[in-house]
Amino acid sequence: MNFSHYFPVWDQLTADDQDQLTGAAVCRRVKKGTLLHSGAMDCLGFLMIQSGQLRAYILSDEGREITIYRLLERDVCLLSASCMMNGSQFDVAVEAEKDSTLWIIPSETYRRVMARSAPLANYTNGLMAGRFSDVMWLMEQVMWKGLDQRLAAFLLEEAALEGSDTLEITHEKTGNHLGTAREVVTRMLRYFQSEELVRLRRGTVELTNIPGLRKLAEK
Amino acid sequence: MNFSHYFPVWDQLTADDQDQLTGAAVCRRVKKGTLLHSGAMDCLGFLMIQSGQLRAYILSDEGREITIYRLLERDVCLLSASCMMNGSQFDVAVEAEKDSTLWIIPSETYRRVMARSAPLANYTNGLMAGRFSDVMWLMEQVMWKGLDQRLAAFLLEEAALEGSDTLEITHEKTGNHLGTAREVVTRMLRYFQSEELVRLRRGTVELTNIPGLRKLAEK
Repeated sequence: MNFSHYFPVWDQLTADDQDQLTGAAVCRRVKKGTLLHSGAMDCLGFLMIQSGQLRAYILSDEGREITIYRLLERDVCLLSASCMMNGSQFDVAVEAEKDSTLWIIPSETYRRVMARSAPLANYTNGLMAGRFSDVMWLMEQVMWKGLDQRLAAFLLEEAALEGSDTLEITHEKTGNHLGTAREVVTRMLRYFQSEELVRLRRGTVELTNIPGLRKLAEK
Repeated sequence: MNFSHYFPVWDQLTADDQDQLTGAAVCRRVKKGTLLHSGAMDCLGFLMIQSGQLRAYILSDEGREITIYRLLERDVCLLSASCMMNGSQFDVAVEAEKDSTLWIIPSETYRRVMARSAPLANYTNGLMAGRFSDVMWLMEQVMWKGLDQRLAAFLLEEAALEGSDTLEITHEKTGNHLGTAREVVTRMLRYFQSEELVRLRRGTVELTNIPGLRKLAEK
């Protein structure tokens, strides 16, 4: 476990700060489907992904979901430690999309080191600004892009993540990523099929026209 | 001009850091309607509002808008200095909604002091987390609340800001706050009128049933 992979500012921390962070970190292996963190009340800590895949998403009161970002190998997740930020409340949930191995630094330790370390605080600022910018981008998508564009972009992202043009994903899960109902996804996928962009089979979506999907996603 | 009103951590900064910030700050008076900052390319600086009212909003490629937050007396705005955060791009615009007086600390100065000051960096972290949380809240609204709820909440907010139940605001401006088209606002306001929640006159919206609007906003 090399913390400097996750913290580009590692060399700027004092030996004591480094010891505090490494000493408190715990390793956890989680199965696909594990809910790691849920809502503002929870405060799991600062996550460092060693392998696997997680997603962070918002959950509505009625149980609807929308994915805000994916976490892959070498990514870090700050929102699962958001309780350490004064006055902020994020109703963000984090779940494992694949079997994953991750390191967790408890929020209290992270907060204490950050309070005295300008390099760590500035690094954390940059992380938060990056995620903030992801969410702003997503909001623009939701506000102003059609579901056809967003669905095309999602299918392309999935294909890249899975390394395959045939996706094993249900319409319901797809809806949970995009913040929309299963029926709406089904209707749009059927439309995509009629446009010869995809081929639908039981439980799979095959992308048959990648350039066409890309054009739609970027229109 | 007392900086400690805007920076609760002022006393924790070194005398040199305080001097850098105060020495670089400039005061600006702007007329209602002035566009102060526009998009990721711009980098106005860190804003401190002395008086007046500003709004921060996102602008789509097609010219549609949605308000992300308001800035009132004693508020600060960080996104107008977002260029100082590595790797973040915020297409946020800031305009004066009323004649306003504000202080601006240039981004470069702010970034330089923050890089060496743990208290300033942690304070900035908290600010960003707060705005992030505002935007997440807004996204939940946009995703999962009906326009009727959002319009009712907006009318109540306006009435509170203006200190009046009779609002002089066009349907187009209302649409720009809510990220929707003028026609959609007009249709919804007419529905509100039929429900005896508001009374519409040329150029004004009078809120005639505050409890009813509140109930709708919170449903």
